[in-house]
Amino acid sequence: MSLQEQINATPGVAARDAATHGFVFNHTMLRVKDIAKSLDFYTRVLGFTLVRRRDFDEAKFSLYFLVLVDDPSQIPAEEPARGQWLLSQRGVLELTHNHGTESDAEFRYHDGNAEPRGFGHICVSVPDVEAACARFEQLGVAFQKRLTDGRMKDIAFIKDPDGYWVEILQPTARV
Amino acid sequence: MSLQEQINATPGVAARDAATHGFVFNHTMLRVKDIAKSLDFYTRVLGFTLVRRRDFDEAKFSLYFLVLVDDPSQIPAEEPARGQWLLSQRGVLELTHNHGTESDAEFRYHDGNAEPRGFGHICVSVPDVEAACARFEQLGVAFQKRLTDGRMKDIAFIKDPDGYWVEILQPTARV
Repeated sequence: MSLQEQINATPGVAARDAATHGFVFNHTMLRVKDIAKSLDFYTRVLGFTLVRRRDFDEAKFSLYFLVLVDDPSQIPAEEPARGQWLLSQRGVLELTHNHGTESDAEFRYHDGNAEPRGFGHICVSVPDVEAACARFEQLGVAFQKRLTDGRMKDIAFIKDPDGYWVEILQPTARV
Repeated sequence: MSLQEQINATPGVAARDAATHGFVFNHTMLRVKDIAKSLDFYTRVLGFTLVRRRDFDEAKFSLYFLVLVDDPSQIPAEEPARGQWLLSQRGVLELTHNHGTESDAEFRYHDGNAEPRGFGHICVSVPDVEAACARFEQLGVAFQKRLTDGRMKDIAFIKDPDGYWVEILQPTARV
């Protein structure tokens, strides 16, 4: 029995319905308090590219869509191809900014890892986890778990400006 | 000025650091109460493939990694290639199951959309949003927002077994 056949025997796993052909796990949405800080973190520290921004001035919020691609020149320059490309990608990050939260000293979002728990983290895989973590240290990024903390020495967790956990791992080191 | 140049002028957006080359937004992790129900939802209703399961019996939790790909034959059959492939992909969904929560009638996770807010939703884009939503109705899937609800007639939100919101949209309809 193949590995896939073994894992398909897990209770709950169903055969794929042809009606789901073309479905794409497109994005994950997180609310952020201070969009300038978040954009700085995701673009400068992690290398994301901001592809789209949508402002809803009446409802006082804005949406920001980011992708992490090595070659941003693959992103179509003009609409509608640009938007269609964005919504057909896997691994898009959507940040929601409710206007004004950044000016409220008391305001904070919930990272999901204290009660009430739910969402846990996002993860960015990197070619060299030691080098990546050394660079994060140099940049003053906050860590939830350094490589040297705890039992699992091959993964780290950094924190984005809202305290959301970002797991950092190296695919080749974790098998 | 190109669209990309305009959007790059958003406060906080930084030029890409070459040190982030090869970074991949790999996965999003959600905790789930009843893994069999969640696997049924993500595989049968949405078409995900379960690629890896890791059991931590001493710590009483298990991790499940799923991808949504049209051709599961691209998934390497054997380790270590399989794990390296998985952790190099964009758009992986990791479900964490803390053993026993499924037997606790009172237990529930927090979806992030009531206070305290934070995480908002994941999104699956589909080739035909009307057909996809009609199928979800037929399958008895819970809706947070039908296409006909509210102002935005081109997006729907369904709910997974823990109540996490899953946005459903059609890339070509939303430009």
